[in-house]
Amino acid sequence: MIVIMKNGAEKEEIQKVIEKLEKVGFSIHLSEGVERTIIGAVGDKSILNELGLEAMGGVERVVAIRHPYKMVSREVKSENTIIKIGNVEIGGSQIQVMAGPCAVESREQLFEVAQMVKDSGATILRGGAFKPRTSPYAFQGLEEEGLKLLAEARERTGLLIVTEVVDPRTIDMVSEYSDILQIGARNMQNFFLLKEVAKANKPVLLKRGLSSTIEEWLMAAEYIYAGGNHNVMFCERGIRTFETTTRNTLDLSAVSMVKQLSHLPVIVDPSHGTGVRSLVQPMSQAAIAAGADGLMIEVHPNPPEALCDGPQSLTPDQFSTLLSSVKDIARAVGRNL
Amino acid sequence: MIVIMKNGAEKEEIQKVIEKLEKVGFSIHLSEGVERTIIGAVGDKSILNELGLEAMGGVERVVAIRHPYKMVSREVKSENTIIKIGNVEIGGSQIQVMAGPCAVESREQLFEVAQMVKDSGATILRGGAFKPRTSPYAFQGLEEEGLKLLAEARERTGLLIVTEVVDPRTIDMVSEYSDILQIGARNMQNFFLLKEVAKANKPVLLKRGLSSTIEEWLMAAEYIYAGGNHNVMFCERGIRTFETTTRNTLDLSAVSMVKQLSHLPVIVDPSHGTGVRSLVQPMSQAAIAAGADGLMIEVHPNPPEALCDGPQSLTPDQFSTLLSSVKDIARAVGRNL
Amino acid sequence: MIVIMKNGAEKEEIQKVIEKLEKVGFSIHLSEGVERTIIGAVGDKSILNELGLEAMGGVERVVAIRHPYKMVSREVKSENTIIKIGNVEIGGSQIQVMAGPCAVESREQLFEVAQMVKDSGATILRGGAFKPRTSPYAFQGLEEEGLKLLAEARERTGLLIVTEVVDPRTIDMVSEYSDILQIGARNMQNFFLLKEVAKANKPVLLKRGLSSTIEEWLMAAEYIYAGGNHNVMFCERGIRTFETTTRNTLDLSAVSMVKQLSHLPVIVDPSHGTGVRSLVQPMSQAAIAAGADGLMIEVHPNPPEALCDGPQSLTPDQFSTLLSSVKDIARAVGRNL
Amino acid sequence: MIVIMKNGAEKEEIQKVIEKLEKVGFSIHLSEGVERTIIGAVGDKSILNELGLEAMGGVERVVAIRHPYKMVSREVKSENTIIKIGNVEIGGSQIQVMAGPCAVESREQLFEVAQMVKDSGATILRGGAFKPRTSPYAFQGLEEEGLKLLAEARERTGLLIVTEVVDPRTIDMVSEYSDILQIGARNMQNFFLLKEVAKANKPVLLKRGLSSTIEEWLMAAEYIYAGGNHNVMFCERGIRTFETTTRNTLDLSAVSMVKQLSHLPVIVDPSHGTGVRSLVQPMSQAAIAAGADGLMIEVHPNPPEALCDGPQSLTPDQFSTLLSSVKDIARAVGRNL
Repeated sequence: MIVIMKNGAEKEEIQKVIEKLEKVGFSIHLSEGVERTIIGAVGDKSILNELGLEAMGGVERVVAIRHPYKMVSREVKSENTIIKIGNVEIGGSQIQVMAGPCAVESREQLFEVAQMVKDSGATILRGGAFKPRTSPYAFQGLEEEGLKLLAEARERTGLLIVTEVVDPRTIDMVSEYSDILQIGARNMQNFFLLKEVAKANKPVLLKRGLSSTIEEWLMAAEYIYAGGNHNVMFCERGIRTFETTTRNTLDLSAVSMVKQLSHLPVIVDPSHGTGVRSLVQPMSQAAIAAGADGLMIEVHPNPPEALCDGPQSLTPDQFSTLLSSVKDIARAVGRNL
Repeated sequence: MIVIMKNGAEKEEIQKVIEKLEKVGFSIHLSEGVERTIIGAVGDKSILNELGLEAMGGVERVVAIRHPYKMVSREVKSENTIIKIGNVEIGGSQIQVMAGPCAVESREQLFEVAQMVKDSGATILRGGAFKPRTSPYAFQGLEEEGLKLLAEARERTGLLIVTEVVDPRTIDMVSEYSDILQIGARNMQNFFLLKEVAKANKPVLLKRGLSSTIEEWLMAAEYIYAGGNHNVMFCERGIRTFETTTRNTLDLSAVSMVKQLSHLPVIVDPSHGTGVRSLVQPMSQAAIAAGADGLMIEVHPNPPEALCDGPQSLTPDQFSTLLSSVKDIARAVGRNL
Repeated sequence: MIVIMKNGAEKEEIQKVIEKLEKVGFSIHLSEGVERTIIGAVGDKSILNELGLEAMGGVERVVAIRHPYKMVSREVKSENTIIKIGNVEIGGSQIQVMAGPCAVESREQLFEVAQMVKDSGATILRGGAFKPRTSPYAFQGLEEEGLKLLAEARERTGLLIVTEVVDPRTIDMVSEYSDILQIGARNMQNFFLLKEVAKANKPVLLKRGLSSTIEEWLMAAEYIYAGGNHNVMFCERGIRTFETTTRNTLDLSAVSMVKQLSHLPVIVDPSHGTGVRSLVQPMSQAAIAAGADGLMIEVHPNPPEALCDGPQSLTPDQFSTLLSSVKDIARAVGRNL
Repeated sequence: MIVIMKNGAEKEEIQKVIEKLEKVGFSIHLSEGVERTIIGAVGDKSILNELGLEAMGGVERVVAIRHPYKMVSREVKSENTIIKIGNVEIGGSQIQVMAGPCAVESREQLFEVAQMVKDSGATILRGGAFKPRTSPYAFQGLEEEGLKLLAEARERTGLLIVTEVVDPRTIDMVSEYSDILQIGARNMQNFFLLKEVAKANKPVLLKRGLSSTIEEWLMAAEYIYAGGNHNVMFCERGIRTFETTTRNTLDLSAVSMVKQLSHLPVIVDPSHGTGVRSLVQPMSQAAIAAGADGLMIEVHPNPPEALCDGPQSLTPDQFSTLLSSVKDIARAVGRNL
């Protein structure tokens, strides 16, 4: 059961609700977000009506939730959550596009791409500084040096920065240089990392695990939300199936389903989702038609020389063409880009 | 290697090409379609240039094909194949919609749905007379009686009929009553059925197998095409993955990929593809945005009482809403409905 | 609900039970096997006790079944079904080994392998005469000529013959030349073929579909059993997963699970199950340790020249080594070979 | 390419090899294990022969490796690696059994199980103190208190302790109380955790990820090995497939395959691998028959009251029966338990 406190509820009011619930045996999960506080309570529902919680000071609403995920559920909040970062809104009528290279490789590469994706209409720059790579012998990222370049690119272009965080020990460092913390697919169920980003003061982009069910994905978001960080967005990036023509199978029905089950925004990454350059544009169109709130696209000035994921990276020209076709789809579903 | 003969090439000209190829050891696969004849030849490619095939009478073009699928490949034919049935064109700029109940249950049910989907804008009526069911104790279809009802519905509404063929022994019977022969997902690699529909005088809708790769799907179409039936269309209907929230995982990247690899039309069935009513409309939108040439949608006058697949069937009203939203997407990608 | 009639129950007794059930609204599935008749009845269970079925003439037992599969369930028959063909028993304490080439290629090839696998201890010869192949351009089998060679090999060696049946129209032909009808993985849910082999007078080996759940597999067996053929054995041959090092993923837990859920025998095919020669022996050992009743192994006199499945075929020597190691495992689990 | 230095090679000798390689442009991965040092070198193989590395002081052998995994490959070391902890040898002829509860719940529970599994023949006690759970509202483990109980159980019984490490910040703490560090399935590609356990002074048990290929699994081990920790063992615990009767699909062909590709030991966890109590014994038998070096089994004094994974936990009695049947299989494959 979930108790949603009013914006501006007093500490004392919150405390009273908790005490009342604990007295009758509920265990409490307190989620103190920037805007509002939500109290999760696990225990005997049958005595709920007798408690008179809704009459207590500071209480906005009490909701019983059927699903194992609670706070991220539509049942708690029927309207869409809109995440605001500067003047960028994620989850509203505007489609947001995150673009950039798989990995930050050098100042020249990054700044060239950054300017180009900005000119085409992207609002957020993506780029990995810490790279989880299958092989220990592959390029592992520029680490803090890469983060600094990202921050510099932000200053030059005004783009927001999204970059991956991979280790609880470097969350503060990554937060310092970026605007959105990305949890990669391989870390979606790294619960100890989730608990830490829940305490960070930055929005989180939560990629779906390679073989994670929709329910597990929602539960991973619940870890972050229940831990106090209410600015969570999902990112579908393809699941692992038997198919080998594509690198992963982009699951667009999951996009639509998560939008129905949760109030949080959903982004789609067709670059990782397909691993095939010629599929990135049609899948971007399909993603927006399916209800996605944004796109994450790999763009590289010279894909054949990319240090990672060249075969799925677009050239800046291809990216520009993609955006123009996506704009038409956005309009057709009553949104804009 | 593929030798494409001109429309109207003489029998004798075809025979001469075959003889020349057989004399130097090629084995021949002759595909005599209604419009044109294609000769597949397997053998030693290195002597190809010496044969002078392109100078022979009736020869249009000689193509070496890299892929294991040959005649259905874009390499053989760069323009889209358009299948014409009466005044309905599948694969052209017009999006075609096939709609109707999972199974033909009764005259009343069928005629009611048929009229309603026709009024909303469908051009083709779907409905199963022979039903492949997981359980021997489940409703198995009305068989020939069902086919007769479909033919009657065609007469009343002018809709074309697509229905499943499940047994080589009943292909003639099904052909008599319908316009498009459907090969179901569970029969996609029933090669002995494929070889028979290759001889039928009706277009074939080839559903993707539950766990078939894109390449296997193209190879299944090759069986039909090489056997002489050039009117083949694909139908993506979801693949089997670990995800359980949806009945299958609709693979829209396969739609776009098959359009790139083959010249044949691609239809999408979001009803079976998701198994969830609330996902049918968003996935229909996404399918058209991804480049599909048509949709196949389950509609039932009273879904809770459907003898099969109720949870994924739309009411006629929902179907009508779906078509209007799909129309906007079609326009955004330069097509119409 | 299932009514098991006594061995030797009179036609009239059976008829009376059916009439009683139909009168109160049950729908009937009559399964007349060679040894005994089983009556499946679908309807309102609550009135069951009032019917007094167990007191009726010829009735052995009445069982309510929880599972969707009924007659093949352990609930109907707690002891193992043993299928007897000549003096070979499948499902008893003796492990049976089926071995031979993927496809019958020629008289020499077949007779050479047949003699060798017989000498090593196999009791059943496998070999395909009708081959379902992904490509229409691949070797499709010798068809009836292949069947004749199999029958000839039986005469020379005394081995029983198992071979695949792929088309309802050739069941009689295949039955004439062989002892066990194999339903291949791609036909496991070809229900119209299942209904026909249910009427055949030969035991059936039912391979698991590439992406079939255990429950679907049991249901496919139910089609055959309910149709009157009680001599059904399962064959696990690997399922399709994301793993690419092996051709399929051999699911040995399914072997053990099906043995717990059903009274029918289970065979394992580690050749198709792995597609890797070096895994055939260890997986054969593991299969018997997991409770399998037999093995199906591809053996070829000269694997690199095999017309199909060379990379997974054993040489006769390797096969002989395999059998000796499997013998030790059989003994460890209280069985013999 | 891999340069294996002799046991006892001098620091200076190692340095000279590195310098020679770096001078001609190779990039170096130095893996300094307790027993021996291995130098991985990535660069232009064609000049290898001219370098005369094998003649240099301290060099045992130079090996060119075809696979992306290098140091863990059989090509580097043809004999089995045996990991010695106290007088327990993992990877030798003796089968080792790790047993205990899913989670450490209380002193009573742990000590009761510990004594019982010890009496039955286990040598290693398993039990989670940090539990990665899908839901933030589920029991998350006793953390350091749990570790202390494990260490206490070790003192009382002499059993070794294996327990999961989930966070780079607590590796030292976990190392202090345990003998083997477990990397859980969800962390198999948490490369930043792998790099840290590579520096720990404890053997590592590396569970296979839910959807990790065999090659990715070997690469994850390579991270640990290349980082200097040569005591790595694999643990197969089932992969995620479409099958729902079992919790995961235990992939025993992977056990045999990894034994062929790598010199490191392989353990099998049939409890998580199946999630079904009645399958644990048959799959344990099959695992040993397939070549596994040990088992990891969940045992609980009272499974229905377990705080996690009750349905797959054995009672101590069932565990004892399992061991006796596994002993027979071990003998059949020339090993002992």
